[in-house]
Amino acid sequence: MQLIGDERLDYLLAEDLRIIQSPSVFSFSLDAVLLARFVQVPIRKGSLIDLCSGNGVIPLILSTRTNGSITGVEIQDRLADMANRSIEHNELTQQIEMICEDLNTVSPQLGYAKHDVVTCNPPYFTTPGKDELNENEHLTIARHEIMCTLEDTIRVSSGLLKQGGKAAFVHRPGRLLDLITLMRQYRLEPKRIQFVYPKEGKEANTILVEAAKDGKPDVKILPPLIVYKENNEYTDEMKEILYGSRG
Amino acid sequence: MQLIGDERLDYLLAEDLRIIQSPSVFSFSLDAVLLARFVQVPIRKGSLIDLCSGNGVIPLILSTRTNGSITGVEIQDRLADMANRSIEHNELTQQIEMICEDLNTVSPQLGYAKHDVVTCNPPYFTTPGKDELNENEHLTIARHEIMCTLEDTIRVSSGLLKQGGKAAFVHRPGRLLDLITLMRQYRLEPKRIQFVYPKEGKEANTILVEAAKDGKPDVKILPPLIVYKENNEYTDEMKEILYGSRG
Repeated sequence: MQLIGDERLDYLLAEDLRIIQSPSVFSFSLDAVLLARFVQVPIRKGSLIDLCSGNGVIPLILSTRTNGSITGVEIQDRLADMANRSIEHNELTQQIEMICEDLNTVSPQLGYAKHDVVTCNPPYFTTPGKDELNENEHLTIARHEIMCTLEDTIRVSSGLLKQGGKAAFVHRPGRLLDLITLMRQYRLEPKRIQFVYPKEGKEANTILVEAAKDGKPDVKILPPLIVYKENNEYTDEMKEILYGSRG
Repeated sequence: MQLIGDERLDYLLAEDLRIIQSPSVFSFSLDAVLLARFVQVPIRKGSLIDLCSGNGVIPLILSTRTNGSITGVEIQDRLADMANRSIEHNELTQQIEMICEDLNTVSPQLGYAKHDVVTCNPPYFTTPGKDELNENEHLTIARHEIMCTLEDTIRVSSGLLKQGGKAAFVHRPGRLLDLITLMRQYRLEPKRIQFVYPKEGKEANTILVEAAKDGKPDVKILPPLIVYKENNEYTDEMKEILYGSRG
């Protein structure tokens, strides 16, 4: 196991998995963990794709929930390399594969209409200011719609999925309407939505949306997920999601 | 004050207002009260319209929040008559007017693009079964899209509103995507959404959406509203909404 520069080998899900992170290159967010826990997956088999995979946090978590094969797609080779080393360290090379490629051109290689699940934690922000662009290329690409737009991720997801397959996205509430509108435009019918609120009495700051390809219109709004208690500790529900127990 | 048939004079908002209801003709729902409390209104003046007004519960509640003029539109004369008698009983004839007319033809009379707020608690269900149709005409029309569709209510709301004016709707979560899609189609940009959950840990059963005519896309998801505590009492927040105090 080789760590490069300021990389660290962090714990993921209590002590069951380890993941390579780097403050200056890429660290996974709570949103990615929430998405990996939110999406409905086939347990025994199937094919799962994670777009905008970063350091592979979503494939790693999904491997604890399914025996299906998981493929991460990440355009930045520096991040895909971190993901590959984490996959090796966790001895998951049989289940998880990382492809370092632009998601806009990856579909022929993965195959159209043959996958069961696509997850995506896309860049949240549209065009960055010039300052941001110059600051740190790795972080800028992960956070801004430079290499792909929201529409790209949705169009590609729809193309990869079988009929009835699930596309699960996480995003900011301000993009909820765009996300829903684009999903419907690309035959992805939202079926489950969950809103994540930082604390009781606060506005939501994260949305989780799962859509079914060619699904029947009828969306469920899941119970609200509150992240922190008044005293800034995680709520019991969040502890369950992060650590698998309320302890 | 004349009560007809099985009508009752019920209390509305603790003891400040009274409203005529009838189990066999029309009783207002919690959803209408939530909508009347949710919508942002001009305090001192302005013009407010309530479509699908029923027995006038929304105009009555709005009268406690604004000095603007309020017009209710209700297609069923039996219900508009109940509303008119409640308005008289509460001495609100200077502020509230009921128009008994089809909302699809009422716009020329009210005037296009000149109102500040339109509220609507529309019929929730699409086509009723034959049994339901025959059962009770008043209730069937109030609950099903017979005299107007969701698209009608949204198209008419948009036509009535000034630029920047607010349209506020209440509906079931299953229609959230249709509501949002139709609003955007008719230049109403959703800006505030609140989900109402019957209890902690349950899926939402009601949605509140406020849109601004020609507004900039950027929606806020307000804190979740939980109706009942574990012991089936109203939560403190609901007591505040219903009675104006947590007592």
